[in-house]
Amino acid sequence: MPTNPSSALSALGRRTTEPAISWLMKMALEHPKLISLAAGFTDNATLPVAETLDLAREVLEHARSGQSALQYGATAGDPTLRELTAKRLHRIDTGKTLRTLPPTHAPERVLISHGSQQLLYILIEALCDPGDIVLVEDPTYFVFLGILQSRGVQARGIRMTDDGIDLDHLETVLGELKRSGDLPRVKLLYLVSYFQNPTGITTSLARKRAALKLLRQHERAARHPLYLLEDAAYRELRFAGDDVPSALTCDAEDRVLYTSTYSKPFATGIRVGFGLLPEPVLSTVRRIKGNHDFGTANFLQQLLARAIASGAYDRHLKTLSERYARKSGAMMHAIQRHFPGNVLCRTPRGGLSVWARAPRSLRTGMHSAFCKSALEHDVLYVPGELCYADDPTRRKPNHEMRLSFGSAGEADIRKGLERLGALLQEALG
Amino acid sequence: MPTNPSSALSALGRRTTEPAISWLMKMALEHPKLISLAAGFTDNATLPVAETLDLAREVLEHARSGQSALQYGATAGDPTLRELTAKRLHRIDTGKTLRTLPPTHAPERVLISHGSQQLLYILIEALCDPGDIVLVEDPTYFVFLGILQSRGVQARGIRMTDDGIDLDHLETVLGELKRSGDLPRVKLLYLVSYFQNPTGITTSLARKRAALKLLRQHERAARHPLYLLEDAAYRELRFAGDDVPSALTCDAEDRVLYTSTYSKPFATGIRVGFGLLPEPVLSTVRRIKGNHDFGTANFLQQLLARAIASGAYDRHLKTLSERYARKSGAMMHAIQRHFPGNVLCRTPRGGLSVWARAPRSLRTGMHSAFCKSALEHDVLYVPGELCYADDPTRRKPNHEMRLSFGSAGEADIRKGLERLGALLQEALG
Repeated sequence: MPTNPSSALSALGRRTTEPAISWLMKMALEHPKLISLAAGFTDNATLPVAETLDLAREVLEHARSGQSALQYGATAGDPTLRELTAKRLHRIDTGKTLRTLPPTHAPERVLISHGSQQLLYILIEALCDPGDIVLVEDPTYFVFLGILQSRGVQARGIRMTDDGIDLDHLETVLGELKRSGDLPRVKLLYLVSYFQNPTGITTSLARKRAALKLLRQHERAARHPLYLLEDAAYRELRFAGDDVPSALTCDAEDRVLYTSTYSKPFATGIRVGFGLLPEPVLSTVRRIKGNHDFGTANFLQQLLARAIASGAYDRHLKTLSERYARKSGAMMHAIQRHFPGNVLCRTPRGGLSVWARAPRSLRTGMHSAFCKSALEHDVLYVPGELCYADDPTRRKPNHEMRLSFGSAGEADIRKGLERLGALLQEALG
Repeated sequence: MPTNPSSALSALGRRTTEPAISWLMKMALEHPKLISLAAGFTDNATLPVAETLDLAREVLEHARSGQSALQYGATAGDPTLRELTAKRLHRIDTGKTLRTLPPTHAPERVLISHGSQQLLYILIEALCDPGDIVLVEDPTYFVFLGILQSRGVQARGIRMTDDGIDLDHLETVLGELKRSGDLPRVKLLYLVSYFQNPTGITTSLARKRAALKLLRQHERAARHPLYLLEDAAYRELRFAGDDVPSALTCDAEDRVLYTSTYSKPFATGIRVGFGLLPEPVLSTVRRIKGNHDFGTANFLQQLLARAIASGAYDRHLKTLSERYARKSGAMMHAIQRHFPGNVLCRTPRGGLSVWARAPRSLRTGMHSAFCKSALEHDVLYVPGELCYADDPTRRKPNHEMRLSFGSAGEADIRKGLERLGALLQEALG
């Protein structure tokens, strides 16, 4: 009897499907001349190559600091980086520079991770059992949906408005879950609150406050805390408008789990994310991280601590902001020029992409004629359907596209959108 | 009704206890003059500070290679590093330099991770459900026991001989599990096969081959593959004797999961581990890693790829080997001089520690009078009990100590062992 090799896999192993990103990468490989408006990569030309060498020199030119950077550190992260992170976030959140930080922004609450993705993963491990429910924006970050699916956790979509999550719909869904007795299975609401991936929408503070209040009102029926997981990964990729304070600024009850990253704004090859977490989530996440890797690579943490302390990090944000303003401008200009008027796009103020909504009659999914035709013309986008949870309460939308200006150059952006525009005109006109 | 904050935690979150390492670190903080023979840190003085700066310069002084290092990479790892890893491992395993590698050592089988710890974690995720059983050496690497405990997986200890795992006992245990109908819950046998943590024992190739054969014979009753997980984390920390080929060299049936690391031999602050895995484990692990972090920090991978390609890595191994030979020699010399004759220690040929076995009458555990007294004299060791699984089939041994020469300097090693020796003489004499 030959043994089936797959039969040794765990339930999690069997559930974990090939991620959407593999399909996107396969398409890129099969079309060598492809203009990818799908990649989540950042802009190559802005990567801080010289700055990183300077930082490496500072860290490594003295034996003592060099040895400390090349040795193991603590699981929670480098103490200096944790403190810099808490102070910096508090300053951005409040505009103030205080000596003693409030509990929500205490350095002890900071946990450093191998990119913020790792923290999202561990948070779901720490809070959710298979069969639990996580409320997500509809649409949302597709790799997060992959985590939930792999771990047997159900996603339930909450509609969005231009100002962030639709509070009426949140209330309706919470009410339905309460009536059906499913509220104890709900652990958290996940918001990508700044320049949301994929829609680009930023959630206002008022809306975050109201969402927290709604969650709080349902805790009695849930019989446990209902957390707001605020994923601020794109917060520092802002090139227009003002910053919005984080949900931490209105978190009187230790219900906000804040995650963000230094990788996307600084260098995606240097994976350092962070979170500010209340107890008992903090200790639980730290222990689980101890089992994952007992701490993020110390060398990377020390490079970033230097970048922040020296001002190199903030200077780099300025460069980024100018560059992405120009590239997103080029994209919006090409869209206006080439896209039919019934394809709606919101002008981005940050992040790495534009969300394009075609009339419902046009299908944009992975297996659609339109997507195939775009690939034949060497253009790839992220089909909108990938960003929607499997939610039996609504039909999965399949008429949108995420168009990224992160990695493609301006000429390619123009060329790609011209081709896509022609195909849209043909399909819709 | 106040909500209990812990009530939102998942079963995994609740199960994940504070790791032993936290207790060890707390002891170190409470005793500022402590000589720690407990830390798993490597030797600070040998960390390749200047070499790393040279590598960083090579990677970052040209925009093109710098940008590539600072950008995201593929989830499975940098293709160059994967190929170098496969070739190097094959050369070490066989002494040959082939152009085309056999399937067991194919570059496609290599997966790069954020330290080998991450790979151990994901392998357990991929293969084990709560309630499953993993066979481990008795004693074994205590952080691995933490992973199993956190994930609700049972550990079952297999006795060791001086030559590695006790094959008779392995056969007995497999037979018992077969009779009790528990074999389908067994997924793998975990061996720390080189300079085992904590005993220092290296498993011979004959024994690995025989263990594979025994596992294979029980697959019918298990109804799935039974894997041999070979953790070779200490393989390159060898300072005496010859290397032993890995279990991959006798893996005709795709049953060996090989994990190792560049972090411990090169720099623990640069976390880069790797594995060579057969399908379908490889794809499953890669997908799960996609959810964890979609790839290990590219910058670190490119530093290591350069270190290996340029020979800097191999040169560094030579430095390490000389240094650890001297430090372990100092430790063995002090043990001979100060320890009573009935405390047995094996002369190490690699790794970072010596395993000391006192008569059973002496308890060495965390809460023992002996351990307290050692701490009062500012000496800390890893109590042997921490390295044993909770296994109802035997009483947990509590009369051993792991004494590390990794991080302490030679003077501290001598002083620490003199003090420990005096306490042992007092307790046993």
